[in-house]
Amino acid sequence: MDLTKICKEAVAAKPSIAKAGSNEKNEALKAVAQALDAERDAIKAANDIDVKRAKENNMKPALLDRLTLTDARIDGMIEGLLQLVKLEDPVGEVLGMTKRPNGLTIGKKRVPLGVVAIIYEARPNVTVDAFGLCFKTGNVCILKGGSDALNSTKAIVTIIKDALTGVAFNPDVISLIGECSHEELKELMRMNDYIDVIIPRGGAGLIKSVVNNATIPVIETGTGNCHIYVDETADFNMALDIIYNAKTQRIGVCNACESLVVHSAVAKEFIPLLVERLKTKDVEIRGDERACEISDYIVTADEADWGTEYLDYIISLRVVDDIDEAISHINRYNTKHSEAIITESYNNANKFLEEIDAACVYVNASTRFTDGFEFGFGAEIGISTQKLHARGPMGLKELTTYKYIIYGNGQVRK
Amino acid sequence: MDLTKICKEAVAAKPSIAKAGSNEKNEALKAVAQALDAERDAIKAANDIDVKRAKENNMKPALLDRLTLTDARIDGMIEGLLQLVKLEDPVGEVLGMTKRPNGLTIGKKRVPLGVVAIIYEARPNVTVDAFGLCFKTGNVCILKGGSDALNSTKAIVTIIKDALTGVAFNPDVISLIGECSHEELKELMRMNDYIDVIIPRGGAGLIKSVVNNATIPVIETGTGNCHIYVDETADFNMALDIIYNAKTQRIGVCNACESLVVHSAVAKEFIPLLVERLKTKDVEIRGDERACEISDYIVTADEADWGTEYLDYIISLRVVDDIDEAISHINRYNTKHSEAIITESYNNANKFLEEIDAACVYVNASTRFTDGFEFGFGAEIGISTQKLHARGPMGLKELTTYKYIIYGNGQVRK
Repeated sequence: MDLTKICKEAVAAKPSIAKAGSNEKNEALKAVAQALDAERDAIKAANDIDVKRAKENNMKPALLDRLTLTDARIDGMIEGLLQLVKLEDPVGEVLGMTKRPNGLTIGKKRVPLGVVAIIYEARPNVTVDAFGLCFKTGNVCILKGGSDALNSTKAIVTIIKDALTGVAFNPDVISLIGECSHEELKELMRMNDYIDVIIPRGGAGLIKSVVNNATIPVIETGTGNCHIYVDETADFNMALDIIYNAKTQRIGVCNACESLVVHSAVAKEFIPLLVERLKTKDVEIRGDERACEISDYIVTADEADWGTEYLDYIISLRVVDDIDEAISHINRYNTKHSEAIITESYNNANKFLEEIDAACVYVNASTRFTDGFEFGFGAEIGISTQKLHARGPMGLKELTTYKYIIYGNGQVRK
Repeated sequence: MDLTKICKEAVAAKPSIAKAGSNEKNEALKAVAQALDAERDAIKAANDIDVKRAKENNMKPALLDRLTLTDARIDGMIEGLLQLVKLEDPVGEVLGMTKRPNGLTIGKKRVPLGVVAIIYEARPNVTVDAFGLCFKTGNVCILKGGSDALNSTKAIVTIIKDALTGVAFNPDVISLIGECSHEELKELMRMNDYIDVIIPRGGAGLIKSVVNNATIPVIETGTGNCHIYVDETADFNMALDIIYNAKTQRIGVCNACESLVVHSAVAKEFIPLLVERLKTKDVEIRGDERACEISDYIVTADEADWGTEYLDYIISLRVVDDIDEAISHINRYNTKHSEAIITESYNNANKFLEEIDAACVYVNASTRFTDGFEFGFGAEIGISTQKLHARGPMGLKELTTYKYIIYGNGQVRK
């Protein structure tokens, strides 16, 4: 695996995609969508090899499901590209222009990031998704998918490259890192001379490995230990509906609720109703001492529970004496993803919005809305839990940077 | 050195500064400015110890100069804080708010980054500067200055902490990492649980060490191998004035010009004039073969010259046959800092602005303008040469991030 060669080809391809107009990029995306449709048998055949091997290796059912490409999933990949065609191209927008006293006119213009490396797991559909988002925003992408999906990913990347060549586009705007050792992957994460940004998409282990090893700037997407705080003025029915939605509508996602905080003034009245509602989905509740005293259904939480993203039918529950205690508990244990308060109090709503440190802070709504599509971005590359560059759902704009363009007429510095 | 203790105190101090209003922060900055003025003898006494030791250790004159605190430099530090008081506080600005079809109102609000670690060299005045910028933007700062300036830095931080205590502010919003080993410093750079961002301020070696060792997101500030391209349509006098300014007005700075690119159609006429002008400051010119043929004054450049940031009275010179060759040369060797074209051609000006990959791209102006003050930001923490988060001069806004604040009335996800 000649990583330097791949990186150099990616850098060489940058101008072709950076300069391309929106129409040209959209036509290419349509051509790729058509090619994926025409070649779906080849994709499925390659995927069959991966799936067969995964079964032999006793891959877990949830992972096997994500690995498997059905016609419906291929339709989804194609539909995703066609949706991107309809979205506005953020590249080239001038975000502002000022004239300085010396006559210099300074503009701030949105431009592609450059070369974006995306490291993901054995989910072949991410290949098309990541390519589409990078391509639409004028970026070259270097993809490294999970090795269990290598045949599927290779087939997809070959189809994309051929389709691009077919519309006279440089196929090096996408490249795939095939089989490579851990050492080679670490080397990739340190190729600052060629790669501008690295985005891990996947579980906590993958993200941690990239954060720990990369010297290239990383956009950390990630884990969500999301809380809902039921204030003493909460509307109980609203609180129950929101908690039920945020915990059980889809359990394996980062914006699901993992922990509840309830004001002590309403705990005795509210917690039995909560138990009743969550029982309907067999949700295990792990509570602190005061919560356990209120209901026998609740089991005792230990310290580790407060910091755990269960991704399961389990939720932790803490009783607090005021909103300050709620806020400090949440800020201590959260992953800076999404937090909600259920309240009828103007002051407490504002206090919570102000003082909670998270990408998305909600009043009277489910944390499940933290999502690029729900936010109206039309696309999503991930949800950032770091503070640099982008925070929360990342759409097309978050795959761009800016440069200053400065118009002078001979100015020199005094 | 108990780094974890310092980090925990910094995290605990976050709410106090994040919540503080602009008036409160400005009053505290004024109190710090007054205290620095009142305690200037203590600062100078501490600095004398550092300077004496540095002289004994044969510190280079340029570094010794930066280490030494005169009354004028202390005035400069104080004046810097008072300037910050006058600037608008970026924290709390709502950058936009949209209403989604389901009734959710989603706002994007500017908030502090949190805990910012700044690692710098033996320049005690950076201590006050870094503190002021972080404080004004609601951030807690952890400072690690060069060990040669430790007495000065300690004295300054003590004065700042006492002044903050005096106006009933939590003094833990600033902390200093004193003497510590390289291993401890590396440990600090990996304290992702406590520190949100790390900013190295200093030479290329310091920056590289932070980029290579940190797992905390880094804002890379930095080196500038800045080019000026003299197009075939350039106004020669303008070109000479701009080059003279960009190369010689201040040689040790990152926005100084280090390399020239000249169109072959004007090389024979322009280069002798260039030599004549740069000779007045004894600037050594290292040129390619064609440049050397034009003037005996020019010495032969080798491959390393094209990528060198001299920070000295030296400049490299390359002759090219068209603007495409100029652009690809610059994009290959630049550090993505600041690049300029001198041209009278509308098309070439636009092409250069479009295709050069750098934080700041100029037409007909000196690269020396890449600076937070010159850009009208009123302050500067550094010049970013990376693409994530901030690019080019970073002022107060670049020391903030955002969070989404979402107003609902019971919405759950379908």
